[in-house]
Amino acid sequence: MYFPQTHTLHDIAEWLGNEYAGKGDLILNGINEIHRVEKGQITFADHPKYYQKALYSAATVVLVNAKLDCPQGKGLIFSQDPFRDFNRLTARFNTFSPGTNTVSPTAEIGHGTVIQPNAFIGDNVVIGKNCLIHSNVSIYHNCIIGNNVIIHANTVIGSDAFYYKRRPEGYDKLLSGGRVIIQDFVEIGSNCSIDRGVTSDTIIGEGTKLDNLIQIGHDTIIGKDCLFASQVGVAGCVNIEDNVILWGQVGVQKDLTIGAGSVVLGQSGIAKSMEGGKVYFGSPASDSREKMRELAYIKRLPELIKILTEKL
Amino acid sequence: MYFPQTHTLHDIAEWLGNEYAGKGDLILNGINEIHRVEKGQITFADHPKYYQKALYSAATVVLVNAKLDCPQGKGLIFSQDPFRDFNRLTARFNTFSPGTNTVSPTAEIGHGTVIQPNAFIGDNVVIGKNCLIHSNVSIYHNCIIGNNVIIHANTVIGSDAFYYKRRPEGYDKLLSGGRVIIQDFVEIGSNCSIDRGVTSDTIIGEGTKLDNLIQIGHDTIIGKDCLFASQVGVAGCVNIEDNVILWGQVGVQKDLTIGAGSVVLGQSGIAKSMEGGKVYFGSPASDSREKMRELAYIKRLPELIKILTEKL
Amino acid sequence: MYFPQTHTLHDIAEWLGNEYAGKGDLILNGINEIHRVEKGQITFADHPKYYQKALYSAATVVLVNAKLDCPQGKGLIFSQDPFRDFNRLTARFNTFSPGTNTVSPTAEIGHGTVIQPNAFIGDNVVIGKNCLIHSNVSIYHNCIIGNNVIIHANTVIGSDAFYYKRRPEGYDKLLSGGRVIIQDFVEIGSNCSIDRGVTSDTIIGEGTKLDNLIQIGHDTIIGKDCLFASQVGVAGCVNIEDNVILWGQVGVQKDLTIGAGSVVLGQSGIAKSMEGGKVYFGSPASDSREKMRELAYIKRLPELIKILTEKL
Repeated sequence: MYFPQTHTLHDIAEWLGNEYAGKGDLILNGINEIHRVEKGQITFADHPKYYQKALYSAATVVLVNAKLDCPQGKGLIFSQDPFRDFNRLTARFNTFSPGTNTVSPTAEIGHGTVIQPNAFIGDNVVIGKNCLIHSNVSIYHNCIIGNNVIIHANTVIGSDAFYYKRRPEGYDKLLSGGRVIIQDFVEIGSNCSIDRGVTSDTIIGEGTKLDNLIQIGHDTIIGKDCLFASQVGVAGCVNIEDNVILWGQVGVQKDLTIGAGSVVLGQSGIAKSMEGGKVYFGSPASDSREKMRELAYIKRLPELIKILTEKL
Repeated sequence: MYFPQTHTLHDIAEWLGNEYAGKGDLILNGINEIHRVEKGQITFADHPKYYQKALYSAATVVLVNAKLDCPQGKGLIFSQDPFRDFNRLTARFNTFSPGTNTVSPTAEIGHGTVIQPNAFIGDNVVIGKNCLIHSNVSIYHNCIIGNNVIIHANTVIGSDAFYYKRRPEGYDKLLSGGRVIIQDFVEIGSNCSIDRGVTSDTIIGEGTKLDNLIQIGHDTIIGKDCLFASQVGVAGCVNIEDNVILWGQVGVQKDLTIGAGSVVLGQSGIAKSMEGGKVYFGSPASDSREKMRELAYIKRLPELIKILTEKL
Repeated sequence: MYFPQTHTLHDIAEWLGNEYAGKGDLILNGINEIHRVEKGQITFADHPKYYQKALYSAATVVLVNAKLDCPQGKGLIFSQDPFRDFNRLTARFNTFSPGTNTVSPTAEIGHGTVIQPNAFIGDNVVIGKNCLIHSNVSIYHNCIIGNNVIIHANTVIGSDAFYYKRRPEGYDKLLSGGRVIIQDFVEIGSNCSIDRGVTSDTIIGEGTKLDNLIQIGHDTIIGKDCLFASQVGVAGCVNIEDNVILWGQVGVQKDLTIGAGSVVLGQSGIAKSMEGGKVYFGSPASDSREKMRELAYIKRLPELIKILTEKL
């Protein structure tokens, strides 16, 4: 998530009311959670197990709840509650405000694009040329749609990430300040849910086609020319490379990568990163030929047990 | 489902045109199907296998198609078709009428609550304070939403139960007279479907968070601080206790209980009641460590068969 | 997909700018892809493996990219790119045009039918008598709804088929010129997606009931009095006969038949045609008793391996 304009470390720390280490004139252009953070940005770490990852990430500044040593050329902001202070920054720079128009007057809509009745287009949405947005679609604020994109009825682009911190008093929500970016020539079926990034962007790559009732989690990046059949569910912070095919009802867990050209057969569950160019099956999924062999062996179990019972 | 005001057994039987047993001045406050019925209410039983359960339930009156003995202090209404007469009562007291407004003038909406464009809010809906109801959400008549609730775009609250009786001429629908009650601090993702109770209420407990594309069946009661990942499906009349976590694409069959603090791993199928505090996996699901052990054994099957072939 | 009026082979070939074989005065009433094509229609074949199937199908004319011999009484249109020319015909006769009304003035709506607020009804839609169309439903152009049909909130009827041809430059979409036909006494839950046929019709048979969040693919034909529980996904060109019950989260692959009276248990995956009257379970699914026996054997694997280890 980018700030509308840059701020210094000093200014951000002062606004938060926190002390800091490092040079106060470090220039910051946004915030980002640890999986997607880039140079010039602030991330946060509120548990010792993430301290090293945060310090050695691309982040220029880390919001942290311990007096760690500040790495050369970086900054630390010391916070009693980094999760809360990160949310305060998101809320400060997030532009959501209640809408009164079906199509926001601040949305930009390209030449030749058709918006069917009852679609909702939020503030600062940008839609390219020659798109077709069907009825009852909801596109939340700040999302970006390329050219020649088709979005079928009742699909939602830009709902919040499913990301909570457990507190003694209940779940605390990490605010979603990121966006969804849909590249050119993408087609998305009906009743899909594409969540926005918490701080980075959820991206659907050029030429990719999604069927109906598909879930794409926050900050997930999908490559070019992928095909996802209906009811596929992809969690947050997943990387799916180019030309991946996911058949119906496949589930993909968070924080993993599916290599280019992979094919995942129907109802499989992807629980760890998978190398490209192979066919996978099962829940949890493995190489499909291996899995088919297992299924054939299972069918031979009765015979096996009969032999054992007789011979032993 | 409560009557707007109480009625006597005599009045209800007379309105239905049926004979009855028991005291005519028994006071009745509503109707309810057999899983959720309470004292003061009417339930129905149209098959001998449910007669005993109905007679010994908390129901004050049973609509029944046999001349059973009336238990002490209760009443029976004798009907040729209890299912049909139960539906007649639901239709009599159910307040659905066609809407002409996007937000019904009979809806009550609390201070600080934002309703985004194109959301539909039905008759007699009550929404608390500081809620955010996103675009294209549909909330059917009579549903109750607490304070500080977020409902993401295109989610449906209060659609009818999926509950039919097989007749020779086709399926006959049990009318849904119940409600959905969403308690405080609940967040519901986009494109979810939360069905109303047939006669009781579907309840989402305080602080519970649902991701996108989730199905919650009629009369299901979900406890506090649960987390359901996307594409979870829960059937009707399920009890899910507090602090239960269901990962993506989990399915839960009807009429069962999942104990407090349970965790169910992705794509599992819950087919019977599960005790609390454990981790489950598989379809049908069992203890996750046991299931993982089974999967490891299956991988050893080829070796096993090789040994058998050689040694026996 | 039917033409508004008939055309001759000569006229169609001339409009496409292609040469043809066969009698120029052959009368054509529409186009249809190979699974559903009927006499009087044009189909296409752009790969040698489909040539024979297309020539011997019911099609009167085949759009084909090879100089095949023309069968007696039929016609061939020779095209460099049959897929593209088939799309040109669909686009020529397809009546979609951008809508400006929530309920199109060209829609026909029967007596006693209620359309709730924010439902979108496209051009030339026909809805019968005594239907209830809930809020935020989207019904695309040309779809046909019978009498006494209930469609719950946010369901989509008539979104495009998920059907693409892989080209070197990316996926090329087969345009959807077909319709959805919903017969009498059907009830469809909330957030369902029923795709239109690419060239034929997707049909939901009389008295069939669908729960929430269900996917039905293009050109699929579902019989009478079926029950599908929530989150079922059915691919394209499937035939489901009468009285079939699919429990929750079942997946069905394309181009297959499920026989009358079948019951498929929850989370099963149907990967090939299944004969009627049986109960199925598993992914891939087989006879449910056989599958349950396999699961019982798997539970005995630890014991089996222990015996082997000790005795051999």
